[in-house]
Amino acid sequence: MNPNAPINPDIMNRERLYPSELRQMIRAGKWRQPTSGVCAGFVQANLVMLPQEYAFHFLLFCVRNPKPCPILDVLEPGVSSPAIANGADLRTDLPKYRVYEHGIMKEEVDDVVDFFNDRTVSFLLGCSFSFERALIRAGIPVRNVEEGKNVSMYITDVECASSGPFSCPLVVTMRPMTPSQAIRATQITTRFHLTHGAPVHIGDPAEIGIKDLDKPDFGDPVTIRQGEIPVFWACGVTSILAATSKQVPLAITHSPGHMFVSDLRDEDLTIL
Amino acid sequence: MNPNAPINPDIMNRERLYPSELRQMIRAGKWRQPTSGVCAGFVQANLVMLPQEYAFHFLLFCVRNPKPCPILDVLEPGVSSPAIANGADLRTDLPKYRVYEHGIMKEEVDDVVDFFNDRTVSFLLGCSFSFERALIRAGIPVRNVEEGKNVSMYITDVECASSGPFSCPLVVTMRPMTPSQAIRATQITTRFHLTHGAPVHIGDPAEIGIKDLDKPDFGDPVTIRQGEIPVFWACGVTSILAATSKQVPLAITHSPGHMFVSDLRDEDLTIL
Repeated sequence: MNPNAPINPDIMNRERLYPSELRQMIRAGKWRQPTSGVCAGFVQANLVMLPQEYAFHFLLFCVRNPKPCPILDVLEPGVSSPAIANGADLRTDLPKYRVYEHGIMKEEVDDVVDFFNDRTVSFLLGCSFSFERALIRAGIPVRNVEEGKNVSMYITDVECASSGPFSCPLVVTMRPMTPSQAIRATQITTRFHLTHGAPVHIGDPAEIGIKDLDKPDFGDPVTIRQGEIPVFWACGVTSILAATSKQVPLAITHSPGHMFVSDLRDEDLTIL
Repeated sequence: MNPNAPINPDIMNRERLYPSELRQMIRAGKWRQPTSGVCAGFVQANLVMLPQEYAFHFLLFCVRNPKPCPILDVLEPGVSSPAIANGADLRTDLPKYRVYEHGIMKEEVDDVVDFFNDRTVSFLLGCSFSFERALIRAGIPVRNVEEGKNVSMYITDVECASSGPFSCPLVVTMRPMTPSQAIRATQITTRFHLTHGAPVHIGDPAEIGIKDLDKPDFGDPVTIRQGEIPVFWACGVTSILAATSKQVPLAITHSPGHMFVSDLRDEDLTIL
């Protein structure tokens, strides 16, 4: 990249927004876009809301599958103000939500005030944006960012540990890199155990049931260069697959890419 | 220690027992002693059993307080065979249990078959035995082991994050060592995040509300030598204080020191 190139002021503004400013904009109806690249350095989260009677088993699902479902915050029934974001309201402060009934997507909405009640339990789970920034800072390529695409996501044939009505296969993201970069990326992402941690697989996609890297189940395919191998991380979409169980009458999630932006800084989540 | 000294065959046998052998002995009524030093290298766990209606909030208490309450295994309601110990039964395979009603200890019993029903949820939480062995291997003194005492435990004035009916102060263990040993011990125990992880405090006990190191709330006082500082770790007894809430009609725990011995190896719990 040419360091003297003019900086796109829009991108700079997106990156430099404070989480509280973004949440205000969303609540005022002034932001309905995805949150990728917004509020650089602050932790973004997957949202799942479920009726209270499913909360124990969903929390247990997350505890049993910490790599795809790292728990950032869980709120008491009926509470919508998370501990990890001052003054935030989970009913209004995400740019877009999806509402599922018995596992089927019914609506995409701008807020969930009408669906939330005193028995609703909210879960905020880590996402990979935090470790992508750490990889980039370390000079490891993040191809989806380089190519301006959504990360490639695949449904594997690896079953998650189930809990009550919640069971699904592991979903992974893939980033291509050289073997030595894969080793360094393993070290770096190990520090970020609350945003998926170390890779779950390196190399042959068939070993985890992925038939064609060019055909991701979600997101976009990216270029894999000569000498690169695919490196796979557990993905937060796993939690969405689990939560949208046919047995659950009502589940609310963020819309893909439209995450909750917390006040936590990436470095708050590191273990070392 | 003189390497040529005769080895006490009883101690060797205790250390070399396999967890499955120990559990069989307990179930057959042939072992009612504490489990400290038994089955060296295998993970021991705190046990808490609660009625199903309290399970979500207790699990959330553990998630919110991962240093004192690291989750090793949580079982479905009515299930007593944990994933982390092949063929084990939590109703019979601990040497001694305590039964609490509304926070008051009612009985100490050899098994809990009569108290367990299809709505009972069992929690297994990490304990400090795993990291003590790692410290000893690294040449860091563990004074309570050297002096053949129970580790010193103190109730601090640091409040845990509460969840529903569960709230209590943080309980810590203390091990005296030199400042440079404290730095090394911090590195070593960081690897063991599922058995309390890095220390929660180093130095002045008054800062966390401890008035007199010679008067621990549980366990025994140990010698603090010239040039040593106290190093404090979160303690699993915190989970017992929380579980024995006045609001909970029935809670079952292990008796102090009489832990559940799992098939997990200490190294299975490390993050690096």
